[in-house]
Amino acid sequence: MSSDSTPLRIAMIGHGFMGAAHSQGWRTAPRFFDLPLQPTMQLLVGRDEDAAREAAERWGWAQVATDWRTVLDRDDIDVVDIVTPGDSHAEIASAALEAGKHVLCEKPLATTVEQAEAMADAAARARSRGVVAMVGFTYRRVPAATLARDLVAAGRVGEIRQVRASYRQDWLADAESPMTWRLDKARAGSGALGDIGAHAIDLAQFISGQRISAVSGVLQTIVQQRPLLAETRGLSGTAGAERGTVSVDDLALFTARFESGVLGSFEASRFATGRKNALRIEVSGSAGAIAFDLEELNVLQFFDARAPIAEQGFTRILVTEPEHPYVGAWWPAGHTLGYEHGFSHQAKDFVEAVSAGAQPTPSFADGLQVQRVLDAVERSAHAASSWVAVADTVAAASTVQETHQEEMQP
Amino acid sequence: MSSDSTPLRIAMIGHGFMGAAHSQGWRTAPRFFDLPLQPTMQLLVGRDEDAAREAAERWGWAQVATDWRTVLDRDDIDVVDIVTPGDSHAEIASAALEAGKHVLCEKPLATTVEQAEAMADAAARARSRGVVAMVGFTYRRVPAATLARDLVAAGRVGEIRQVRASYRQDWLADAESPMTWRLDKARAGSGALGDIGAHAIDLAQFISGQRISAVSGVLQTIVQQRPLLAETRGLSGTAGAERGTVSVDDLALFTARFESGVLGSFEASRFATGRKNALRIEVSGSAGAIAFDLEELNVLQFFDARAPIAEQGFTRILVTEPEHPYVGAWWPAGHTLGYEHGFSHQAKDFVEAVSAGAQPTPSFADGLQVQRVLDAVERSAHAASSWVAVADTVAAASTVQETHQEEMQP
Amino acid sequence: MSSDSTPLRIAMIGHGFMGAAHSQGWRTAPRFFDLPLQPTMQLLVGRDEDAAREAAERWGWAQVATDWRTVLDRDDIDVVDIVTPGDSHAEIASAALEAGKHVLCEKPLATTVEQAEAMADAAARARSRGVVAMVGFTYRRVPAATLARDLVAAGRVGEIRQVRASYRQDWLADAESPMTWRLDKARAGSGALGDIGAHAIDLAQFISGQRISAVSGVLQTIVQQRPLLAETRGLSGTAGAERGTVSVDDLALFTARFESGVLGSFEASRFATGRKNALRIEVSGSAGAIAFDLEELNVLQFFDARAPIAEQGFTRILVTEPEHPYVGAWWPAGHTLGYEHGFSHQAKDFVEAVSAGAQPTPSFADGLQVQRVLDAVERSAHAASSWVAVADTVAAASTVQETHQEEMQP
Amino acid sequence: MSSDSTPLRIAMIGHGFMGAAHSQGWRTAPRFFDLPLQPTMQLLVGRDEDAAREAAERWGWAQVATDWRTVLDRDDIDVVDIVTPGDSHAEIASAALEAGKHVLCEKPLATTVEQAEAMADAAARARSRGVVAMVGFTYRRVPAATLARDLVAAGRVGEIRQVRASYRQDWLADAESPMTWRLDKARAGSGALGDIGAHAIDLAQFISGQRISAVSGVLQTIVQQRPLLAETRGLSGTAGAERGTVSVDDLALFTARFESGVLGSFEASRFATGRKNALRIEVSGSAGAIAFDLEELNVLQFFDARAPIAEQGFTRILVTEPEHPYVGAWWPAGHTLGYEHGFSHQAKDFVEAVSAGAQPTPSFADGLQVQRVLDAVERSAHAASSWVAVADTVAAASTVQETHQEEMQP
Repeated sequence: MSSDSTPLRIAMIGHGFMGAAHSQGWRTAPRFFDLPLQPTMQLLVGRDEDAAREAAERWGWAQVATDWRTVLDRDDIDVVDIVTPGDSHAEIASAALEAGKHVLCEKPLATTVEQAEAMADAAARARSRGVVAMVGFTYRRVPAATLARDLVAAGRVGEIRQVRASYRQDWLADAESPMTWRLDKARAGSGALGDIGAHAIDLAQFISGQRISAVSGVLQTIVQQRPLLAETRGLSGTAGAERGTVSVDDLALFTARFESGVLGSFEASRFATGRKNALRIEVSGSAGAIAFDLEELNVLQFFDARAPIAEQGFTRILVTEPEHPYVGAWWPAGHTLGYEHGFSHQAKDFVEAVSAGAQPTPSFADGLQVQRVLDAVERSAHAASSWVAVADTVAAASTVQETHQEEMQP
Repeated sequence: MSSDSTPLRIAMIGHGFMGAAHSQGWRTAPRFFDLPLQPTMQLLVGRDEDAAREAAERWGWAQVATDWRTVLDRDDIDVVDIVTPGDSHAEIASAALEAGKHVLCEKPLATTVEQAEAMADAAARARSRGVVAMVGFTYRRVPAATLARDLVAAGRVGEIRQVRASYRQDWLADAESPMTWRLDKARAGSGALGDIGAHAIDLAQFISGQRISAVSGVLQTIVQQRPLLAETRGLSGTAGAERGTVSVDDLALFTARFESGVLGSFEASRFATGRKNALRIEVSGSAGAIAFDLEELNVLQFFDARAPIAEQGFTRILVTEPEHPYVGAWWPAGHTLGYEHGFSHQAKDFVEAVSAGAQPTPSFADGLQVQRVLDAVERSAHAASSWVAVADTVAAASTVQETHQEEMQP
Repeated sequence: MSSDSTPLRIAMIGHGFMGAAHSQGWRTAPRFFDLPLQPTMQLLVGRDEDAAREAAERWGWAQVATDWRTVLDRDDIDVVDIVTPGDSHAEIASAALEAGKHVLCEKPLATTVEQAEAMADAAARARSRGVVAMVGFTYRRVPAATLARDLVAAGRVGEIRQVRASYRQDWLADAESPMTWRLDKARAGSGALGDIGAHAIDLAQFISGQRISAVSGVLQTIVQQRPLLAETRGLSGTAGAERGTVSVDDLALFTARFESGVLGSFEASRFATGRKNALRIEVSGSAGAIAFDLEELNVLQFFDARAPIAEQGFTRILVTEPEHPYVGAWWPAGHTLGYEHGFSHQAKDFVEAVSAGAQPTPSFADGLQVQRVLDAVERSAHAASSWVAVADTVAAASTVQETHQEEMQP
Repeated sequence: MSSDSTPLRIAMIGHGFMGAAHSQGWRTAPRFFDLPLQPTMQLLVGRDEDAAREAAERWGWAQVATDWRTVLDRDDIDVVDIVTPGDSHAEIASAALEAGKHVLCEKPLATTVEQAEAMADAAARARSRGVVAMVGFTYRRVPAATLARDLVAAGRVGEIRQVRASYRQDWLADAESPMTWRLDKARAGSGALGDIGAHAIDLAQFISGQRISAVSGVLQTIVQQRPLLAETRGLSGTAGAERGTVSVDDLALFTARFESGVLGSFEASRFATGRKNALRIEVSGSAGAIAFDLEELNVLQFFDARAPIAEQGFTRILVTEPEHPYVGAWWPAGHTLGYEHGFSHQAKDFVEAVSAGAQPTPSFADGLQVQRVLDAVERSAHAASSWVAVADTVAAASTVQETHQEEMQP
């Protein structure tokens, strides 16, 4: 943060919950990390000028605009940070990349595979011009999750044998909580699967270092009618009624096969009563296991199957030591971090990639691949849960099915 | 245990690990519970006389025999307790019931649906003659599990929304642990699914009070070749080889639909590194949730969604109070029980049912239903994980599939 | 348990809660452990013949007697097992040892140091005649506690730096729970300190391998008046009143110095709301730490300070492996034990010591030492919590005081 | 954060670890809370100009100065925020208050009771002129700790029966970690007791709503000689040696009596191997209990003794709901906070008090009282752990001693 450091001027498009989180990341990262470029909160874009201005003041953005397209021609903007709803990501990101802006796009990358493919293409083209793109699966940057990946990559769990991943919340458990646009397929695209299931998929692939090639799943809408509030009367298919129809899933259960043949079980739920933000991953291997729970985000559980048998057990690692990923920049050992710190880590890694001209991860291609897994789950659910290959991994998936049949006919 | 109490004379067929557990149950139950009949450990039956005699001495059985058929005509035997491998259950149980003996049969009821049906028929016929039959899903009688059922039945979790059940162990995680008869389909019938998955199914149905009507699942054999020891050279298809072929599943993942339409996720694994005996059940409802883990068997987690919001959370109930099921007969509050106590509770409940002429639970019909679920999972696994109705619940299952398709086409 | 094994014939004096626990130990130990002598439940002694007979029938003792003195001359009794209230231990134990009977005496050894000294003397004399005596601090034989001792002894925590021990219950937390003889000093001798604090002291010394040499403590009676029930009207100082006076402590807090100079904090409480049987020990050392909680008795927490820093944390060892103390005789890995199993382990160890002519532990001398610590705590409490040396460790204690002053004046 | 809000201009004196934390608080609070005044990071003061400038740039302070006295006359400074070592607090705070600046002073208030008294006097005088002073016991503002206080104040634990408080770390557990000024009494004043024990005292008093009136304690220096680094050669009494003498405690154990007569046990340790930042408080009452652990700072454990017995247990409240203190301003339910958030809460509360002309808590008088408790512990340690009254609470303390003797002579 030396006074002569070059600024990296950011325009953030959107200002909902994710806008607050990204703002906190941009504001805080340079206070704790030595960054090669100085992120500058230049411009906040929102359709409603008053609301945008209020958000900009609250979160510390210098200027506001109401049309994101105006950003494309501005020379004083280096980065476009997209925190709008998913159905607008494709257009904004592609245009921004085309205009030579680096892009950080909140997850999910898009609401359809087609959009995501176009975005990945745009990112690939931009990459050749030195412009980078990244999708915001921030939970990878919770230190305990990064440590989990590091331990797996270092062989501390040996050969992976199975994966469990679930993201469980209960914010729809009350059947009388009202209809919102998030429960309307026309607006939201997907329900629990796309919103929180996407995190479970990305994190499972990130930590295991393996990609999902085929899935078998089921989706369910547990509460199908919800009270309409005045402001939600206009949602598709609900006009005039006192209750609106929930048209997205609020429970998704699926089994995945990774390219290696390893099986994983996945769940995304809005009805897991008492679970508030329980993104849990467990990776079991021939030499150990790791288990992570976002509700205890400073902790990683690690089982070392190579320890003396009498001393084996899950070790509750408090991931607050200088030796742990990202942690050294913050507080002394034992002083915990929270949800928002992932956004500072994301800002740091993004800035470093821009400065180095390197590809940040997860890339748009990674985001596309998650989108394809989500799509495959939906297609499997439509096909009575039979196995569906994740696009571009057809070969692996067909092998899966054969293996699977052999297993059943010993 | 008054001196004039009528004895209930037991013959136990078999004497493996389960024989030790049942013996401990028969021996201990009358010391802590006031029973209407006095269980008497009369006869232990084992094919090898020396081994049977050694077991009888060790565990306190008065006599031994080598042929279980001799029990049928003995007037001094009231109960036949079957702890042999699953493939012999059907013949012994049916004959014993026919001979007028009450029968306690260890789970799984049988290794095929056909056998289980025959047993359930035999039990129904016997019932009309005042003879009772029970299958040994002992985990129902862990006080915390019984309390979970009680809370659900009392409406403390409200309307059930989803179920999670898994039984995870790691005793096959070492790829070099040798081949055994349990891994040979010809002998064992099933792998993790039938052995431990059956417990997860029974417990989930018991606690939820609902039956599974359809399933979609996959089975996997993670390590397919294992070293042959001298004594396992004769296993089917393995003669002469240095490695034997594992012909049963060691990982089973499936999704179940209960008759109410509720979805549940299930897992049975021998490769969950670091998990030793982790039978876990979570039932989420509109008013609360319960969660149980057999590795912490004195504890029930209960979430009360009707409590003031600021005070909500999972309550860790130490299930050791006199107010808890079965517990009052044992030690003061806070003094924990172990795995084996379920067998004393089973003995108590069985003796009481015999004395009262009442049907003990789980009945053979209950055991048959679990067998049908297991069978449906295998059939689904053979059919690329597409949904398969549990027999005798076809109507419900086909409804499921329709509902399921509707959900996907909003 | 071969048919020719020599019996070891036991007479148990008393039949309260501890009688049930000891009976379960004698009955069960030979079923799971190969013992060199065969414990035989020969005689139960109780003052009230009907009550004694009922207990004998319930727990499986062959005969009853009403006067413990008649045991002394019987040739068919090898062992006297004392489970009466503490104030009768000294007389019975000394007489039994004198008569050549091996003695197992429930804790606390006695209610005064003088009695305990006499008992230790009697045990020493008996020892020279091949007769052994043991005091029943059973919690040493919870496998996780034994494992803790083993790890400490093997140097896995390095040099001990401090000790924390507490035994917390809440069974007096209700101020309206009635007066009992346990709350009357004339009958019970001591309150929480002597009853449960004694366990904390013994276990802390056992696991650390160090003895306490001086203490500073305070005692408190939180609720001083309690309702009198009809049957407690006769308690000392309470006749005619509607409320009786609690004359023992229900909260004891003290600091101890071990002979090595290490400090430990101790607590015994009947008012720890929500804690049911929370005997907790934590031993911190230069190379690691262990932590144990009786409410989770199958678990030992172990911190290995020599592990790579990024992987350090408390490991939750599920103490159910064959490699763990006592566990191999019971159930497969992951199948938990309960409170009562310590009594089977005690029976096993006692029988083996008798057979081998070896001194079982804890000896009466060990019990005496605990009594002296309890006594020193009471004396310190009377002396405004100033430090009091544990008898026979005066030298160490006075050193303590000097060191302590030096520390304060650097 | 409306554009016309009045600024509250801050000068921060010092820039160590606490400077980073305070800066993060000042920077972040107005982004999440609607504050009546706008905190402005105007001036950072440090003796070394280069270091001060670097810190100011990193943390976002507008200007720097090298002499804190220059602040006194500046009209553009409203608040003096003191984060220097404890021995300078008294002089700076008193002068600032005298000059009409509001003061936020990091804990401990001072290093001696005399200094603290002078500061409390200065604060009282300033208060009459509308100038406020506050001491920074930030842990009060961890939402779970505040919730604990709220539950106790609302009677949810009933009448308090006992308190347990400990603050345990292990950063001195390695005997070869080098000498630092914190281990030199001449510089640091106190060791574990004053540094972390002070937090335990404040938090115990805050949550219980009761003040400590007398103590009995012991202090220990476990490792008395440590390697000298080049930069610590000059520490008092250590010149020229290769090892320096640790002249402060690294373990403090004490018992406290609150004014109500309730007893509490306290510990502050730097040698609790494996405990990184374990500030734990448990308050047990007639109707319930609360338990808090800073290592799990988003969680409060609450036991409700009025719940149905079969449902009682410690409830693990994830303190991330809008209904919880401070939480509504941050993220959605289930999204956790970290260590640093307490500093934003502190900033918020301080700004609100300044704006309202109200006394913020904890006041300097509260800080003085903690200092008196620390002093009493040291005096008790010098007096062989006999009870010492906390100054200004002599009456209560002498009563304590009498009660205490009565208890011992029933």
